[in-house]
Amino acid sequence: MASTSNDTYIMEENLDEDDCNPAERSRWVLNAPDPPGLWSELVGSIRETVFPNRNKSSSWVNKKPELKHVGSVLGAIFPILRWGRNYNLSKFKNDLMSGLTLASLSIPQSIGYANLAKLDPQYGLYTNVVPPLIYALMGSSKEIAIGPVAVVSLLLSSMIQKIVDPAVDPSTYRKLVFTVTFFAGTFQALFGLLRLGFLVDFLSHSAIVGFMGGAAIVIGLQQLKGLLGITHFTNNTDVISVMHAVWRSFRHPWNPHNFILGCSFLIFILFTRFLGRRSKKLFWLPAIAPLLSVILSTLIVFLTRADKHGVNIVKHIEGGLNPSSAKQLQFKGPHVGEVAKTGLISAIIALTEAIAVGRSFASIKGYHLDGNKEMVALGFMNISGSLTSCYIATGSFSRTAVNFSAGCQTAISNVVMAVTVILSLEFLTRLLYFTPTAILASIILSALPGLIDYNEAYNIWKVDKLDFLACIGTFIGVLFASVEIGLLVAVTISFSRIILNSIRPSIKVLGQLPGTNIFCSINQYPMAVKIPGVLIISIESSFLCFTNANYIRERILRWITEEEEEEESKDNAKRTLQVLVLDMSNLMNTDTSGLHALEELHKKLVSFGLQLAIANPRWQVIHKLKLAKFVDKLGSGWVFLTVSEAVDACVGSKMVTLQC
Amino acid sequence: MASTSNDTYIMEENLDEDDCNPAERSRWVLNAPDPPGLWSELVGSIRETVFPNRNKSSSWVNKKPELKHVGSVLGAIFPILRWGRNYNLSKFKNDLMSGLTLASLSIPQSIGYANLAKLDPQYGLYTNVVPPLIYALMGSSKEIAIGPVAVVSLLLSSMIQKIVDPAVDPSTYRKLVFTVTFFAGTFQALFGLLRLGFLVDFLSHSAIVGFMGGAAIVIGLQQLKGLLGITHFTNNTDVISVMHAVWRSFRHPWNPHNFILGCSFLIFILFTRFLGRRSKKLFWLPAIAPLLSVILSTLIVFLTRADKHGVNIVKHIEGGLNPSSAKQLQFKGPHVGEVAKTGLISAIIALTEAIAVGRSFASIKGYHLDGNKEMVALGFMNISGSLTSCYIATGSFSRTAVNFSAGCQTAISNVVMAVTVILSLEFLTRLLYFTPTAILASIILSALPGLIDYNEAYNIWKVDKLDFLACIGTFIGVLFASVEIGLLVAVTISFSRIILNSIRPSIKVLGQLPGTNIFCSINQYPMAVKIPGVLIISIESSFLCFTNANYIRERILRWITEEEEEEESKDNAKRTLQVLVLDMSNLMNTDTSGLHALEELHKKLVSFGLQLAIANPRWQVIHKLKLAKFVDKLGSGWVFLTVSEAVDACVGSKMVTLQC
Repeated sequence: MASTSNDTYIMEENLDEDDCNPAERSRWVLNAPDPPGLWSELVGSIRETVFPNRNKSSSWVNKKPELKHVGSVLGAIFPILRWGRNYNLSKFKNDLMSGLTLASLSIPQSIGYANLAKLDPQYGLYTNVVPPLIYALMGSSKEIAIGPVAVVSLLLSSMIQKIVDPAVDPSTYRKLVFTVTFFAGTFQALFGLLRLGFLVDFLSHSAIVGFMGGAAIVIGLQQLKGLLGITHFTNNTDVISVMHAVWRSFRHPWNPHNFILGCSFLIFILFTRFLGRRSKKLFWLPAIAPLLSVILSTLIVFLTRADKHGVNIVKHIEGGLNPSSAKQLQFKGPHVGEVAKTGLISAIIALTEAIAVGRSFASIKGYHLDGNKEMVALGFMNISGSLTSCYIATGSFSRTAVNFSAGCQTAISNVVMAVTVILSLEFLTRLLYFTPTAILASIILSALPGLIDYNEAYNIWKVDKLDFLACIGTFIGVLFASVEIGLLVAVTISFSRIILNSIRPSIKVLGQLPGTNIFCSINQYPMAVKIPGVLIISIESSFLCFTNANYIRERILRWITEEEEEEESKDNAKRTLQVLVLDMSNLMNTDTSGLHALEELHKKLVSFGLQLAIANPRWQVIHKLKLAKFVDKLGSGWVFLTVSEAVDACVGSKMVTLQC
Repeated sequence: MASTSNDTYIMEENLDEDDCNPAERSRWVLNAPDPPGLWSELVGSIRETVFPNRNKSSSWVNKKPELKHVGSVLGAIFPILRWGRNYNLSKFKNDLMSGLTLASLSIPQSIGYANLAKLDPQYGLYTNVVPPLIYALMGSSKEIAIGPVAVVSLLLSSMIQKIVDPAVDPSTYRKLVFTVTFFAGTFQALFGLLRLGFLVDFLSHSAIVGFMGGAAIVIGLQQLKGLLGITHFTNNTDVISVMHAVWRSFRHPWNPHNFILGCSFLIFILFTRFLGRRSKKLFWLPAIAPLLSVILSTLIVFLTRADKHGVNIVKHIEGGLNPSSAKQLQFKGPHVGEVAKTGLISAIIALTEAIAVGRSFASIKGYHLDGNKEMVALGFMNISGSLTSCYIATGSFSRTAVNFSAGCQTAISNVVMAVTVILSLEFLTRLLYFTPTAILASIILSALPGLIDYNEAYNIWKVDKLDFLACIGTFIGVLFASVEIGLLVAVTISFSRIILNSIRPSIKVLGQLPGTNIFCSINQYPMAVKIPGVLIISIESSFLCFTNANYIRERILRWITEEEEEEESKDNAKRTLQVLVLDMSNLMNTDTSGLHALEELHKKLVSFGLQLAIANPRWQVIHKLKLAKFVDKLGSGWVFLTVSEAVDACVGSKMVTLQC
């Protein structure tokens, strides 16, 4: 608004008369070229979404020979072909170190996450093999660590076990997991190919903070099963069911060995993290602490044969590389709809995490990450995963941070990690027979605090109370109902806010800032003064439409009545209000309901003996006002480029007698 | 360019030094008082909704004695107490004439509408007795004609017959109709009392135009049953089912007498309407034509005993006044939820029609109609109706127009109409025994063209293509699916548009209008010139939030790249773009996702070596930018009141080297 209202008359008189009088400028407003129609806007918007760099790439194609074009397309699909050329030994040294660090963290974590996803331990390891390798070929991020993550594992098990109970029919459950993974990958790849990246934005920042916090607590509660060695646990994820299950288990005779073992190693892991934070040189300590815990605790159990005294152990892990799971995908049957829905939700959650992780580390290193390209890479990675006995993989917050601090240079660290996992699968699975499950629980527990972002939640509370409502609503939804309900709450609160914003826009009275021709809200700028006889109202909405048009009309009419009463009580004279200037700067568009409301407002003002003037109507608005013949009814002399010109015209035409 | 900025400073030097330098004005922006918090806004909004005139009425109460206060409250609830004092004989003469004209139209119409609602004919007449009397006591509109209307009758029958088939169990069906009426009345009264009038706005103007058009055609198709004398008709309302039923009936031997009788009187009624339009003095002719047709056709059938030759007749109409139906209301049982939903939908449709009718005639006569008060009146009228064997009544488009042209003065014309209907119920129902049903069908058909507003649909097409999509979508939904689906389409399209608007706001590059300090979109004002070295971007959305923040950030960054490429290709020199001025005038609010996007944008710009300046941040925005410490990161020197001050600062500080 103010950008256009700070015109200066003194200056204008110095310049060419022809261009500068307000009447000429009003004509500029009225004779603006037609804005693009719906069709051309639609085509333009689709083109911009699908080919954001079309112009550049097409001119580029014309210049270069065919062969290079093929190379460039291949390079776009497989970024490794580009950065691979500059790869050298010193980079590999860094990648090797960080890849090994990553593997030492990934192996115990992924066994734990497979447990959370209600799958056998080897499936967690499988998921650490194929997806990282595919991502290394297709992905653009250098730091991201690919593999199973806690939140997606929880989401999968909580949604799929509603269809099939994994305890009753593990084989069907597994088939559904692979099918969900396939659907998730397909959705991710489609989002990327159709450039629908904005769908990920539908989870607002505050909703994600709340969701992650709630999910972390839910995951932590699920670990009580392993930590306490409870055999009969609930399938529900909400706090109340879990606490109830825990309470019930205490009434049976229980074995404290699991708890003592788990807790001591949890304290050990947290202590190493504390050390790692104190001294940057010890960053590898918290990274290998989980593997160390696994080795130590396995040794302890093996030597003391504690499994005979009630300590639960992992037992058999299927060795060998990923078997094919292509034949296990199920696209028929009664559950396909449910499975596809689960795939869609997990796809979005996985993308949200991966892209947030990728972007934040890319911005630290100062390179740009193309969200849509990443989605394609993540999608193909999960499709391949679904064919090779993997479940949904994505970028992990905690492991990416470890990878980064271990000094990774390229996605080769993911390859190193995958190769290490392959070797473990081939040779080391038998050694994990005696690993106590309580250790896996404590490894997962130790990774959770990173998901709960108190500081950010406090920042949200400080800056935006409604955002905090979305955050805390999602948190409570996840905690007390279910993961899906939490997501539903997030989307509902976030979108309600947009709708509410359009139902009740605020309307402000403007005043003149002293010493300028700038008109601003008298609430925001208490020094602004009202012009006697002129009421200047600004509509603070970008879309005058059916939801708010009647409200705005009524509100303006009520304001006029109040203003007149105020002036009457002040002057004890006849009313002085003569012109209503409607500042339309903020209004980007209007619909027919809005036009009707303006017409009715104008009729009412005429019946009150008041003149309506409009200032700075935007492109679409003035176009529609002209089409609806509103400008003809108003008189084209009452359309102004700026509020100050409207006020000057009123004062100049002696319509308003100034009293100051 | 340089001359412009000098001029600005010269002007400022003429004025009071203290108030007028841009730095001081930047301080105004930064030191604005805190905007009201969420809580006080919420309380204020509720207070404003519930007590819009609180201040005035409370001060008024203090001044006046208690007794007068009671009188004023009674006067507010029963407006008849106010205007009744000035009622006189000459007004009554007008009301008597218009009331009788109204009755002659209402009696045949309401029998037809009862037929459409799948009720016995007398229920249509009952609905013309109690609701108009109650409305005359409580309503504020002078012209509105209360009674059953076509669209609501159709809506009722199409929704309730899904629960109970009226042909199988007419008594239960009737009970449900009264219960729906009770619910509808309760919802209407509640909307009014809680001042939720804006809920009626959720059907946009264009959706109503489409809905009414579609409903009119559906109602017309339903009349084919009466007009063709078909015995086995479909319960569905969509075009395809109805055409199929009509087609099937032709294959049986059918009787053309009904059709000939109906059509001839339809032509008669339409001809009288044509005459009425040609000459204003003959306005009574189309108004009494339906009654005339009923009398004539009844006589014809009675004299020729055509009912024995296959002409369908009304047969027995129960005489006597409205019986009580209080005991027929059903608030238990499995259908209560469905019934309440039907009540809610019919309440909204009925309110939409009544308030649109009332407002348009009130604005012709130049008085104001309080929507919330009207809702209370309509609500209590329907609650009373539900207890006295009436179904939902509301203001009728066509009859209100007749009432108005017949010269009605007050709601007494409704009373006259109701008394006439009472007399008919007492004495004349037996005379309607031989009335052919085809005549009722043709009377309804003759009232339908008024519901189809081609002109408005064309206007909508001309002014706003997306609004037309909502209009035509609703029309097609009603026509080919069902009334409910049509309404669902209307609400969905209308709200999608608001959401879409917030997902893809447009972003404009601003330029300086020649000879001024005004910065406007270079698309809307082709004469605007860009400032070299400064890119000025305006965000054309009122809410920078999770749905659009990432899009806006990416779009701005892409624009900078394009701008730089353009400048490079022009000058073949190193890049000259140095400052990005973000015009925030249109931005009313932001959420944490928006703040994050701004921070990321700032980081990116810093990494490009570009300076970010923001101009005219609004109240909530600058408040949140300060809370989120964004202003500190940006530097408070880069916050300006207007775009031109930002540009002047860049030019003045020699950050931008001018080349022209």
